[in-house]
Amino acid sequence: MLVDGKPYRTIWLNEDGRSVNIIDQTRFPHVFSIVTLRSMKAAAVAIRTMQVRGAPLIGATAAYGVALQMAEDPSDGGLDHACRTLMATRPTAVNLRWAIDEMRTLLKDLPRDKRSARAYARAAEICDEDVAICAAIGRNGLEIVRGIAARKGPGATVNILTHCNAGWLATVDWGTATAPIYMAHDAGIPVHVWVDETRPRNQGAALTAWELGRHGVPHTVIPDNSGGHLMQHGQVDMVIVGTDRTTASGDVCNKIGTYLKALAARDNDVPFYVALPSPTIDFTIDDGVREIPIEERAGEEVSKICGLTRDGRIETVSIVADGSPVANHAFDVTPARLITALITERGVVAADKDALSEMFPERAVGAVLPSHEKEAGAA
Amino acid sequence: MLVDGKPYRTIWLNEDGRSVNIIDQTRFPHVFSIVTLRSMKAAAVAIRTMQVRGAPLIGATAAYGVALQMAEDPSDGGLDHACRTLMATRPTAVNLRWAIDEMRTLLKDLPRDKRSARAYARAAEICDEDVAICAAIGRNGLEIVRGIAARKGPGATVNILTHCNAGWLATVDWGTATAPIYMAHDAGIPVHVWVDETRPRNQGAALTAWELGRHGVPHTVIPDNSGGHLMQHGQVDMVIVGTDRTTASGDVCNKIGTYLKALAARDNDVPFYVALPSPTIDFTIDDGVREIPIEERAGEEVSKICGLTRDGRIETVSIVADGSPVANHAFDVTPARLITALITERGVVAADKDALSEMFPERAVGAVLPSHEKEAGAA
Repeated sequence: MLVDGKPYRTIWLNEDGRSVNIIDQTRFPHVFSIVTLRSMKAAAVAIRTMQVRGAPLIGATAAYGVALQMAEDPSDGGLDHACRTLMATRPTAVNLRWAIDEMRTLLKDLPRDKRSARAYARAAEICDEDVAICAAIGRNGLEIVRGIAARKGPGATVNILTHCNAGWLATVDWGTATAPIYMAHDAGIPVHVWVDETRPRNQGAALTAWELGRHGVPHTVIPDNSGGHLMQHGQVDMVIVGTDRTTASGDVCNKIGTYLKALAARDNDVPFYVALPSPTIDFTIDDGVREIPIEERAGEEVSKICGLTRDGRIETVSIVADGSPVANHAFDVTPARLITALITERGVVAADKDALSEMFPERAVGAVLPSHEKEAGAA
Repeated sequence: MLVDGKPYRTIWLNEDGRSVNIIDQTRFPHVFSIVTLRSMKAAAVAIRTMQVRGAPLIGATAAYGVALQMAEDPSDGGLDHACRTLMATRPTAVNLRWAIDEMRTLLKDLPRDKRSARAYARAAEICDEDVAICAAIGRNGLEIVRGIAARKGPGATVNILTHCNAGWLATVDWGTATAPIYMAHDAGIPVHVWVDETRPRNQGAALTAWELGRHGVPHTVIPDNSGGHLMQHGQVDMVIVGTDRTTASGDVCNKIGTYLKALAARDNDVPFYVALPSPTIDFTIDDGVREIPIEERAGEEVSKICGLTRDGRIETVSIVADGSPVANHAFDVTPARLITALITERGVVAADKDALSEMFPERAVGAVLPSHEKEAGAA
């Protein structure tokens, strides 16, 4: 997307054909800085310290991390070392594991002198595939925005509420929840985005607001508490959020607080959409509330907050009464019954077991597949 | 309530019989300091700078402000000057206006040499009346907590979620939403309080957590986003919140975000209670969503946050992307249909027009009153 008029991805190869640039997301929203990764180790540090975050971007960075290692040491030992080092950065990240497995499988049987070129080519493909998925989500979601705009009449602004950052900063480009928004804005549909600040880590205020602002999309940051009031007063036309994990029946696990917005949307007849790449659908589980364990993170993410002082320093301050315990649940589950539809790269689909099985027959559990597809699935 | 084992009110007369002490709430939660008010002007500064906040406490401070003036200058001019100065501190505060009118009416026809003693006596009464109302709310709410504790069985903890600070720091003692909690705790019922941090002004994390902690009530601070998840998993037995304004039909206007918690409570069959002194019921309006205008406050309350640095300084930092607009709606309205019951000083009552009229027949609009009560009402 655009940053002050210039198009960017969140990760890209330099002209030297070897080093890789990323946007350092740890200094957002106050500092926009580009970091050059010149080694596998630098890529591992970038993932571990969350200079890059968001599942697709983590996967892409790991793929380039393997490529950087192959440029320096394409031996079997080098490949093993890279895979182990990168895997240890964020052990629970599904895309990280997928990207590293993908690179290892691809490279291990190749002669050493072919490994570097093949690794860079595949890392670039992984990035392009992510962009293609997000762009497809954007096109499918754009039609929904277009429909609301048509109902509101010429010139009327479509007000969209979003929670957390399912934006281009979490992917390689476009984002998931933001893709329909960027496409609508670029298509000349007047959109305005209510950006939940998204406590405790403030990804809305820090990341979503930043990226919408740089691309020129009108938006307003609000406390997470405000969405219900805005919906009661007709100031929200639709909600679009992302998801970390979606069940076979369409329950959605996303950043804590998403469920509250879905309840408010239902209470006020506001359509509630979830944008997602279909690989994040987990067809092995059904009941999200009962089956998805919710990560509890450090209380300090709630009790301390980092920001910019008047004199330009980044400072961390405590905001909770001394000695008070703090709980920090990272995600919640929004039951499918509250979701208007899922926006995937393949199309818009009801959050419903039958509808999902029909749209993704090759992945639904119990699906009868041709034998070669079964094998591909098992690989 | 107790602060480290010692009982406190939020405002009290010193042994000199003239100066008045308050707890400076601007430095919470990091500094507990007591400020002595030695003049009407000091009382006015305390209200204006929010060293004291919460409707009942503002009223009590204004009453003592008039008394301080009478001790210094009991002339008609002095009385007028005090009333005008104090009224200008927070012009929209209903309790402030009520307390000042009360003092003026009481004092204006008295001889000058009687004014000071009468003013101090009435200020003390206003404090005691507030304590009596809150204690009655506490006793009525205690029975609800007791009922839940009985259903859960011996030794089981009753988990109560609250939003914002309807605590003793907002009143003279006990608080409104917290009164049943303190009484249950003092009665030996095991209670644990989920304290919503309450963005953007963080009254939960700063004030409610502080006062519960000092009194020894087990509690945990959570982001405002967390309540729905906790309710989905059976970790909340009841919600109790306060209210700034309640309509004749039982709609409740309270701190922004209250409505979202009420929706989650309804979705998970968690009882949702609102504790209030009955004078905050406005029998002249019915539909809270349509009729109550919601104050919009400065965006800086959202985009900047104040806390304690590691080296012990109070520092303000910016947390929103530069250039992003911010909206800050102070309150929302929870429709009566989502409220299990209102806990008032007179009893527990359904959030319903007929039930409220029946419990407060003398105040319901259209009520036929004996003529002397009518006159009292008009006075």
